[in-house]
Amino acid sequence: MTLDKKYILGKDTKILIVGLGMIGGSYAMSLKKQGYRVTAITKEADSVVYGLEKGMIDEGAFRVDEGLVKEADLVVFALYPHTLIEWIRDNQHLFKSGAVLTDVTGVKGSIVETVQGMLREDVEFIAAHPMAGKERSGVRYSDDSIFRVANYIVVPTGKNTERAIEICRALGETLGFANISVLSPEKHDEMIAFLSQLTHCIAVALMCTNDDPTIKNYTGDSFRDLTRIARINDEMWSELFLANREKLLSQMDLFVDTFTKLRNSLENGDSETMREMMRLSTKRRSEFDK
Amino acid sequence: MTLDKKYILGKDTKILIVGLGMIGGSYAMSLKKQGYRVTAITKEADSVVYGLEKGMIDEGAFRVDEGLVKEADLVVFALYPHTLIEWIRDNQHLFKSGAVLTDVTGVKGSIVETVQGMLREDVEFIAAHPMAGKERSGVRYSDDSIFRVANYIVVPTGKNTERAIEICRALGETLGFANISVLSPEKHDEMIAFLSQLTHCIAVALMCTNDDPTIKNYTGDSFRDLTRIARINDEMWSELFLANREKLLSQMDLFVDTFTKLRNSLENGDSETMREMMRLSTKRRSEFDK
Repeated sequence: MTLDKKYILGKDTKILIVGLGMIGGSYAMSLKKQGYRVTAITKEADSVVYGLEKGMIDEGAFRVDEGLVKEADLVVFALYPHTLIEWIRDNQHLFKSGAVLTDVTGVKGSIVETVQGMLREDVEFIAAHPMAGKERSGVRYSDDSIFRVANYIVVPTGKNTERAIEICRALGETLGFANISVLSPEKHDEMIAFLSQLTHCIAVALMCTNDDPTIKNYTGDSFRDLTRIARINDEMWSELFLANREKLLSQMDLFVDTFTKLRNSLENGDSETMREMMRLSTKRRSEFDK
Repeated sequence: MTLDKKYILGKDTKILIVGLGMIGGSYAMSLKKQGYRVTAITKEADSVVYGLEKGMIDEGAFRVDEGLVKEADLVVFALYPHTLIEWIRDNQHLFKSGAVLTDVTGVKGSIVETVQGMLREDVEFIAAHPMAGKERSGVRYSDDSIFRVANYIVVPTGKNTERAIEICRALGETLGFANISVLSPEKHDEMIAFLSQLTHCIAVALMCTNDDPTIKNYTGDSFRDLTRIARINDEMWSELFLANREKLLSQMDLFVDTFTKLRNSLENGDSETMREMMRLSTKRRSEFDK
């Protein structure tokens, strides 16, 4: 069987977005523009109204709507981790047989196993992580252009079929992500702990370190760059941190070790160690700009 | 006496730049465009040739040139801290009586007192810090547009006259800085330790924490933002760190304390403390975007 993008995610695919926030809304916006039938279930009536008014969805409901769930070939969950698990547990009897479910959650280990473990045999859950975001939440901040410079990661387990992996990859391609890759849940969570969660911890801590209100008169680009992500959705991120606790703690400790090495070389006037670290960081960071 | 920008830094002011690197070159570029006579003394013959070819300077020398020093009304030192002190010690007999000297150095406490303490009575040193930069060094990266979004800080001591402070401020205005302010050396160095040096330490340490070469395939905006300044001139920054050692160590320790508080709240599953810190960081960071 040839796997062809058109075939895999044909224009007759009915797509349901559960959770019409900034990311769910951006998915809807992109998919609707491309001619798919896109529906949404979300808890705020306002968000449904907004999505309909802006032409981001064809239909929407602010309670679980049997008709919308039953017709969907592809269901995208854009919910907080615990809500995703509860939603699927409570409503999985409604899915169409053969439906593919995917998500946008920032951690995987704590979700994928639970969901795949409890799911009906004739429905498949394939995890994915769109590494795109904004410092704002809510459907009003939807913007499908954020995908164009972003990475999309398909996160399959041994339980996933080739078909579902290809559908999930085709979804990332359709949304226009710059780069699509495949990682195991374990590797994904390790990588996210370092690249995304640790950086958010640093930004939050840095912003909490100094309470002098006059500093904003003197900030340069570097401080602004390092703290941009200190504007953070505390409910979502604290849940994501806890869902990846061990891996994040281990990255935080590695970072403090390295930072302390630099600190001690400064205290000891050990210029050579400082400069060695700076040359290493310069070399590694230069690789990113190639 | 009315202090008027035109009067203070009249177009007949002869300006000498000592150290024609990225910052010195950007000063020269801007001032030359505005019609000043701009000369340069720098150690690389190449840089002089480049400055002349690009029309950034009227004359230049790669050794101390008596004529150029003697004619200068305003001398801008764009050198590393220890070189600045040595240069002034060795050549101060050449300055024109009444000349004003200023600098661009990123730390002040370790320099200003030394320079003012040894300087001839008829010449005045007024410290300044243009908070603008790039991740590249050398005259070829000169770019006077970097000043337009940047802060310029005049850093006077009790020894400085009102006239020199006004000349220094007028220089910042002429260069087109977005914001000009005045701080004591003590306050300046504290602020710089937190806003600039600590952020560079974090970026360097973060980049040195993980040696997995595949991570660059998955980096998002946040990691790239936090490590942009990890491309660093190791010679200059290690000297600047050492020149501000006590203040930087104290900011590094404060940061690690705050980071550890976040770390421990994660380990203890103390979601409320994590969220409190996130709300504080969000509130403070939002102030910057106003």
